[in-house]
Amino acid sequence: MQPGGRLKIKDLLRSNSVGSEVTAKGWVRTKRGNKNVAFIALNDGSTINNIQVVVEVSNFNEELLKQITTGACLKVVGTLVESVGSGQSVEMLAKEIEIYGTADANTYPLQKKGHSLEFLREIAHLRPRTNTFGAVLRIRHAMAYAIHKYFNDRGFFYLHTPIITGSDAEGAGAMFQVTTLDLNNPPRTEDGKIDYTQDFFGKSTNLTVSGQLEGELGAMALSEIYTFGPTFRAENSNTPRHLAEFWMIEPEMAFYEIVDNMNLAEDFLKNLIQYALDNCMEDLEFLNKMYDEELIERLKFVVSNDFVRLPYTEAIDILMASGHKFEFPVSWGLDLQSEHERYLVEKHFMKPVILTDYPKEIKAFYMKQNPDGKTVRAMDVLFPKIGEIIGGSQREENYEKLMDRITELEIPEKDMWWYLDTRRFGTAPHSGFGLGFERLLLFVTGMGNIRDVIPFPRTPNTAEF
Amino acid sequence: MQPGGRLKIKDLLRSNSVGSEVTAKGWVRTKRGNKNVAFIALNDGSTINNIQVVVEVSNFNEELLKQITTGACLKVVGTLVESVGSGQSVEMLAKEIEIYGTADANTYPLQKKGHSLEFLREIAHLRPRTNTFGAVLRIRHAMAYAIHKYFNDRGFFYLHTPIITGSDAEGAGAMFQVTTLDLNNPPRTEDGKIDYTQDFFGKSTNLTVSGQLEGELGAMALSEIYTFGPTFRAENSNTPRHLAEFWMIEPEMAFYEIVDNMNLAEDFLKNLIQYALDNCMEDLEFLNKMYDEELIERLKFVVSNDFVRLPYTEAIDILMASGHKFEFPVSWGLDLQSEHERYLVEKHFMKPVILTDYPKEIKAFYMKQNPDGKTVRAMDVLFPKIGEIIGGSQREENYEKLMDRITELEIPEKDMWWYLDTRRFGTAPHSGFGLGFERLLLFVTGMGNIRDVIPFPRTPNTAEF
Repeated sequence: MQPGGRLKIKDLLRSNSVGSEVTAKGWVRTKRGNKNVAFIALNDGSTINNIQVVVEVSNFNEELLKQITTGACLKVVGTLVESVGSGQSVEMLAKEIEIYGTADANTYPLQKKGHSLEFLREIAHLRPRTNTFGAVLRIRHAMAYAIHKYFNDRGFFYLHTPIITGSDAEGAGAMFQVTTLDLNNPPRTEDGKIDYTQDFFGKSTNLTVSGQLEGELGAMALSEIYTFGPTFRAENSNTPRHLAEFWMIEPEMAFYEIVDNMNLAEDFLKNLIQYALDNCMEDLEFLNKMYDEELIERLKFVVSNDFVRLPYTEAIDILMASGHKFEFPVSWGLDLQSEHERYLVEKHFMKPVILTDYPKEIKAFYMKQNPDGKTVRAMDVLFPKIGEIIGGSQREENYEKLMDRITELEIPEKDMWWYLDTRRFGTAPHSGFGLGFERLLLFVTGMGNIRDVIPFPRTPNTAEF
Repeated sequence: MQPGGRLKIKDLLRSNSVGSEVTAKGWVRTKRGNKNVAFIALNDGSTINNIQVVVEVSNFNEELLKQITTGACLKVVGTLVESVGSGQSVEMLAKEIEIYGTADANTYPLQKKGHSLEFLREIAHLRPRTNTFGAVLRIRHAMAYAIHKYFNDRGFFYLHTPIITGSDAEGAGAMFQVTTLDLNNPPRTEDGKIDYTQDFFGKSTNLTVSGQLEGELGAMALSEIYTFGPTFRAENSNTPRHLAEFWMIEPEMAFYEIVDNMNLAEDFLKNLIQYALDNCMEDLEFLNKMYDEELIERLKFVVSNDFVRLPYTEAIDILMASGHKFEFPVSWGLDLQSEHERYLVEKHFMKPVILTDYPKEIKAFYMKQNPDGKTVRAMDVLFPKIGEIIGGSQREENYEKLMDRITELEIPEKDMWWYLDTRRFGTAPHSGFGLGFERLLLFVTGMGNIRDVIPFPRTPNTAEF
């Protein structure tokens, strides 16, 4: 029972208290009917389903009923009765209706008719009131909760890595600068440069692109940690796959070799998708019907099949022997493009694929070097429709080998002293990976544009709301 | 069972498989002994307790044993045996020892002796390896998980509100600017001002100070939501209670009046503290012994007593009649200082207090106005030792009343159109509050400085790691 004696519509629809008086509160999706009886579809966001409120017109004030239009917010007290025609098992026979807030039919943007996803992005403050975004946001919640539950159940500790960072050591992408300096008239040093000693942190700072390096510090003390926080890329990429601000999950585990890392990633993804199937089926069915008719089938397929595990070198052989005409070239040493990844997953293996042992030149400095001197213990998990959903690796735990790469790549050692300390003092084999939360949601919801799986997307020229 | 057949030390210490061969991996806390037998205390972060590894010196290479010093990382295979002297019920009789990483005794900063919290802040990359920070970080994890579980169990949806924001509507504090402009030579408009149309988002942007306003958008569609994310204040406050980057939890609920909001806040806090008592007792006992000998007593007291609920006006009367000499003045219309809050909680009522109905002038524009024309339906939850731990209110749902305050306070309407839309279209009574996560952790851990309850604190002139 909610405050004010309210029952959530999700609970009302499951209730077997037919005949009893109940209270519902929510927003009008539609009103239809005739001069004798009106039918109001009421939704409160607890479920994609509406409760039908049946109104005997003669029992209510005409002016009140006129104000009940799409978008209005109501309190309804009434009797729960068995339903014949509403599509649900029960409906409400209204006794009292109170209007909390009206929604002028001439100006309220979310009228009954369908709206394009592009238009709904412009009213991101209202789109959670639609079936589509209600479903997406409920699934988003369920996936976030499933992630925390998965790691908590296994003894991982949630580590909050910093958002504002003083170093760009990971080099994962272009960064946003964070400052309190007056841009119109910044303090300058004698030689005319910006005087960052006067900035808030006494030096130049940026928004984080990854919590991994700090995550490793946690793993080297607590054994198994994970991060789940916002990360940022200042890249001018206006694509359906890129956001300037997105959420990332990065587990990091001491004593895990690359195979353990792969096992965890596969089990983790399957667990999350199974959680969605177990807990979000009504929302998935809606999305399956409206956006992607293979969605549920695809989710079930992923949880019930082993992922293929394949070295990069063999993947290159497969792609070169395929005879398929790709837009981007395929040859050993080049990074794989989305088209190559999707060919392997969707055409060749017809299964998720974990690619391993990439050439060291196309991967980050911290990945564990293989004895061949050419490849590193990287692993990318490739999914149908999405391409890369997880990227990870075993980490180089050997101080000298790590230093060699840092020197080769001319990474400033002054930014790395604390990271290097983990290899100086009690180093251990360890591994980890990163999962882009919105990439996961694209897969689980079947939506096609990443702007539609986050409440308030940030992209070039867009930071509204 | 962990990868490589490892058992976590937490599980080893609870195991009743005495006599069987087990594998432990972790970091050496101490080594002591004599020429015949060595005792190694090994910790892997899964628990504050160490497992004692007993080493028959004659069975091992002398050089290997020499390298086992505080901070070294080991794999130990051995027999689990009943313990007589280690303080735990079981210990390990070592058969094989592998050193993953040494820790040079001359340079490793975390030697056996105690270290000041100030010193440990300078090596925040290593401090999770200490008893104190292991305990704090495990409790931090447990509290984060308890928060997600609490809301998930009650049908709240986790909403990710934006970190980068284009408006400073809430006015909660000084903001950090986020930019990709070249500070050395920023583009300028014809009249010499910074040309923000050329910035990444096409306008000036900042880091969020609160997700509340966007949270309200979610509540007006999904009924009950909560945020849990980083928030920022660019205030030059070098105190034990302030961070520039901290985490906040902000639930927002449609159809909640102020009393429902108070009920939720009280139940929520008690639930979290009970979760800590149920799940973190070993860590709490350590902190109770080392830092705050009233800690556990205080936690138990809070969960087992009703919070006092009191209007601000009555609180002022109590403070003025108290005869107590305060540093800051007390009179109706002035905000309460920490000393006043703590007097009410610690001296007068000896219980947590929820203060309500503050003068509107000292509270935010969005709080619901009382009929008296002077006060608003604010509520602050005051805790012993901490002062304000939660601040919240019922929100003004009436469009005209809200607009009046916005006009009075000269808040730019152009930044607020989307917020105002919630009052234009289907408005409803609603309420919410904010809990500073690190404030909660100060209370639950008994630590005295907020820099010691977050892994990597950001404060003026400090953004290391």
